[in-house]
Amino acid sequence: MPPESLDIPYRGGFVGPEHHFALTVYFEDTDAYGIVYYANYLKFMERARSDMIRAVGVDQAAELAASGSAYAVVEVDIRYRRPGRLGDDLQVVSTVDQVRASSVDIQQRVMRGTELLTEATVTAAFLDGEGRPRRQPRAWVEQFMRISEQGR
Amino acid sequence: MPPESLDIPYRGGFVGPEHHFALTVYFEDTDAYGIVYYANYLKFMERARSDMIRAVGVDQAAELAASGSAYAVVEVDIRYRRPGRLGDDLQVVSTVDQVRASSVDIQQRVMRGTELLTEATVTAAFLDGEGRPRRQPRAWVEQFMRISEQGR
Amino acid sequence: MPPESLDIPYRGGFVGPEHHFALTVYFEDTDAYGIVYYANYLKFMERARSDMIRAVGVDQAAELAASGSAYAVVEVDIRYRRPGRLGDDLQVVSTVDQVRASSVDIQQRVMRGTELLTEATVTAAFLDGEGRPRRQPRAWVEQFMRISEQGR
Amino acid sequence: MPPESLDIPYRGGFVGPEHHFALTVYFEDTDAYGIVYYANYLKFMERARSDMIRAVGVDQAAELAASGSAYAVVEVDIRYRRPGRLGDDLQVVSTVDQVRASSVDIQQRVMRGTELLTEATVTAAFLDGEGRPRRQPRAWVEQFMRISEQGR
Repeated sequence: MPPESLDIPYRGGFVGPEHHFALTVYFEDTDAYGIVYYANYLKFMERARSDMIRAVGVDQAAELAASGSAYAVVEVDIRYRRPGRLGDDLQVVSTVDQVRASSVDIQQRVMRGTELLTEATVTAAFLDGEGRPRRQPRAWVEQFMRISEQGR
Repeated sequence: MPPESLDIPYRGGFVGPEHHFALTVYFEDTDAYGIVYYANYLKFMERARSDMIRAVGVDQAAELAASGSAYAVVEVDIRYRRPGRLGDDLQVVSTVDQVRASSVDIQQRVMRGTELLTEATVTAAFLDGEGRPRRQPRAWVEQFMRISEQGR
Repeated sequence: MPPESLDIPYRGGFVGPEHHFALTVYFEDTDAYGIVYYANYLKFMERARSDMIRAVGVDQAAELAASGSAYAVVEVDIRYRRPGRLGDDLQVVSTVDQVRASSVDIQQRVMRGTELLTEATVTAAFLDGEGRPRRQPRAWVEQFMRISEQGR
Repeated sequence: MPPESLDIPYRGGFVGPEHHFALTVYFEDTDAYGIVYYANYLKFMERARSDMIRAVGVDQAAELAASGSAYAVVEVDIRYRRPGRLGDDLQVVSTVDQVRASSVDIQQRVMRGTELLTEATVTAAFLDGEGRPRRQPRAWVEQFMRISEQGR
């Protein structure tokens, strides 16, 4: 690997309709049971969603500045299947599952190669500064629709 | 408050069938949106469950040493209603909802006084060292049953 | 303990010139070595400093809104002596060590009863919105001076 | 980028005597001031050290299993120069500064391109299971010496 590329952080990307995001488990992620602490999978999933939103070309910061609106997670249903461990290389695989006027459902699985560690459905709602649901920008809805239909 | 009591950390406790656990939101709990980061509610809920289990008299450490078995969270369904903020005083109210042979469901609400911030159903399974479900110790089941029926 | 007091979070306080703040080690604080993760002592210390500043009567939020200025940690020198473990009851003991025009040094020790776990000197500077040092409000300096001289 | 490489997490590496490790700032890293929370730089630095140790070929896990000994951070002196922000791409640049019989000093700087955000000296001691200093394995000392002398 050329030296200068060491200074460029990892970015995930799409493989068809699936967004892939890879990470390594560090000490900060583990707990005294020797496994990944259960809340930290939500961190892994949020990193993947941030990366996915950037890859899609949605500019959340500009929208927040312009309209005061932003995505907020309103619901997470998560199942823990197998524990992750220190040093594991994991993959977060995310798909846009359903797009509604003011919210979107994202399916996220944390994999260790072919093994499923955790899986979740995350609902993100588009909220104004007072926390009320707003219609998502049309261009974003179209982007999410396009992704969710890719490969079907 | 007498000086020596300052050195004794907070403990929650039961009010009828409800376990109450109070905490304050510090900088570590917040994110750049100025609100409590979504994964951190799972930390608040785990603190409350640890306190509840201690209050009930379940000795998880002894059981782990003796049999290699311990509780692990296998499922969380969480809804985010209102954001918590820096300096908020919050209460985690937990009730034992259902007790099965090898798992238990706990309802947890994070309140700011009378306002509901988040609510979750958490399923904790009793697993052996290989991650297989085991029957919970009979004394623990009786304790959880007794709590869940209190006040009904 | 009367039930309603369960809903009031812990607050620390001063014993002469020493601010005392107690806490319990939860799973979130530990790592795969079975001990408190080294960065988390900085969380414990920040909780204690936030509590100390509140106890002193400094209204950081009002100052930030009025002048755009706030305290920021600019230096930490920390030594790790003994590991903390899951379930430990710890005390953070903080003293104001030195008060300068635009910064303050705070000594902080994390104790487990009479055992010293970690000790640190933390320098907090009063910075404006562009990150430039500003004179601390005179009333605050007087408060910090008064505390640091108490009991000498 | 070929799809399969998306599933491989980032690894840092050496550029002469300097170990480089890149990362992106996510929501989990920030606080209500809108900047990276001060304790989280210690997480970034630990990720970089873990990566450096792996790159050097030191097998900590095997040594821990064989002798019960492992590295523990015993001292950190850290200075905060400029704040990191959400979405920033950062680089942790680490050099082995001094190698002693049972400990090693590592200099670590967190950079945003050419801007210095934080810099620290971290002392890691090689400790046995009871927390007593032990001589580092000779092969590791030689590795660290070799790195620290590279490029001089």
